[in-house]
Amino acid sequence: MNSKLSAPPVPETMQCVRVVLSQTSHPGNIGAAARAMKTMGFSRLVLVNPRTFPDPQAVAMAAGADDVLGGVRICHSLGEALSGTVLALAMTARRRELATEPAWARDAAGECATIAAQGEIALVFGNETSGLSNAELALCNRWAMIPANPAYTSLNLAAAVQLVCYELRLALLAVPPAPTIPGAGLLATHDQIDRLIDHFEQAAVESGFLDPEKPGRLILRLRRFFSRAGLEQEEVSILRGLLSSFKTPTSKRYR
Amino acid sequence: MNSKLSAPPVPETMQCVRVVLSQTSHPGNIGAAARAMKTMGFSRLVLVNPRTFPDPQAVAMAAGADDVLGGVRICHSLGEALSGTVLALAMTARRRELATEPAWARDAAGECATIAAQGEIALVFGNETSGLSNAELALCNRWAMIPANPAYTSLNLAAAVQLVCYELRLALLAVPPAPTIPGAGLLATHDQIDRLIDHFEQAAVESGFLDPEKPGRLILRLRRFFSRAGLEQEEVSILRGLLSSFKTPTSKRYR
Repeated sequence: MNSKLSAPPVPETMQCVRVVLSQTSHPGNIGAAARAMKTMGFSRLVLVNPRTFPDPQAVAMAAGADDVLGGVRICHSLGEALSGTVLALAMTARRRELATEPAWARDAAGECATIAAQGEIALVFGNETSGLSNAELALCNRWAMIPANPAYTSLNLAAAVQLVCYELRLALLAVPPAPTIPGAGLLATHDQIDRLIDHFEQAAVESGFLDPEKPGRLILRLRRFFSRAGLEQEEVSILRGLLSSFKTPTSKRYR
Repeated sequence: MNSKLSAPPVPETMQCVRVVLSQTSHPGNIGAAARAMKTMGFSRLVLVNPRTFPDPQAVAMAAGADDVLGGVRICHSLGEALSGTVLALAMTARRRELATEPAWARDAAGECATIAAQGEIALVFGNETSGLSNAELALCNRWAMIPANPAYTSLNLAAAVQLVCYELRLALLAVPPAPTIPGAGLLATHDQIDRLIDHFEQAAVESGFLDPEKPGRLILRLRRFFSRAGLEQEEVSILRGLLSSFKTPTSKRYR
């Protein structure tokens, strides 16, 4: 038996992981998710517009994980919940139109573990019935699925949290501390990418490329690309500098 | 994305797996375990002396897995529940005295997947609070642990079922169909090993080696060894033949 698996992992990497539950309907699931997180060594739980929280059912289902519940942060949008992250992994129970091919949870956890040394990671779970909306998915950098029985993919929310936290725990324990590479770029955070996309949108409207009355899917497409692309902070600065340089008042077609 | 993971696995190997819940206290956990099993493609649930079953709470927690609940088999002993198996994997949340070193769930699932081609497999889970008794552990061939946070190992029962079924599903999907090896022996079933141990006990009492008034741990030790050893059916026959040959009425010391 490899004793490494029962050893406490490097605290920094466990602490840089947050679990984000968006639009959760049942408070019991929030409590059960807190318990599942704690069994795998994670403690940071963020709720986006929970229907009912706090609630005695959450406390009952948390068993001994009331410390996790006590530390919950409540946000009013997924964007707010992802602030400061360099990687947000969205869990989905089905393949989506428009989405790039999702990874399996195990492979995605491996990628998260590698990136965890560089910044904050979010594991994102949607509503019990409807999952994450397409708009929410577009805010995340990666999508992953649990390889469930195709005839019955209906995992309970806390069960999905349990599985993904388990995979991430094992992946974090297996990853040696990342070497410091001189000159390696810092990954851009969710917020920096958000501002970059706002900048693109503004520039596209100003240039007349984008009609704000009929925006279509342009911004969503840009967001998908930049969310996936692993932008570094310096690259964001370069792109934003470029965008600023394009600003020519004469090109405003729609104002 | 490897499409193999979402493909239905070879039906025979999924169907030769039973999940055994012993002495379960809360019927809701039975329902949630049924749901967890079905999401991973397993359907055979065996209950040993459940406190309350059937029960509406079990149905409520099973969500769409009422077919699994409908097929439940209830047994009055773990031995009865293991009848016909060639490998019983006991899950335990802690290291035990006397037990051999447990495997991690992932490695144990790999072994189960390899053996599933040869016969029936049981995944065995104990009571929510106390787990499996030492006597129950001794009836199983392997022990495994989930590599949980050492500071909080308290997984919900259904969450543990979810994780172990997930690992076994992935392991079964990864294992190519076993080649047929001419002359390879059939593994002995739980029942055949049981009768072998009874035979040993009887022979040991008759020979005077074992005082039935002070049996000590001899039988438990024998059971542990033979449960672990991967006995083939022919080897059981040989051992029982040998034991029968030792029967000499003159050596009875305690009768």
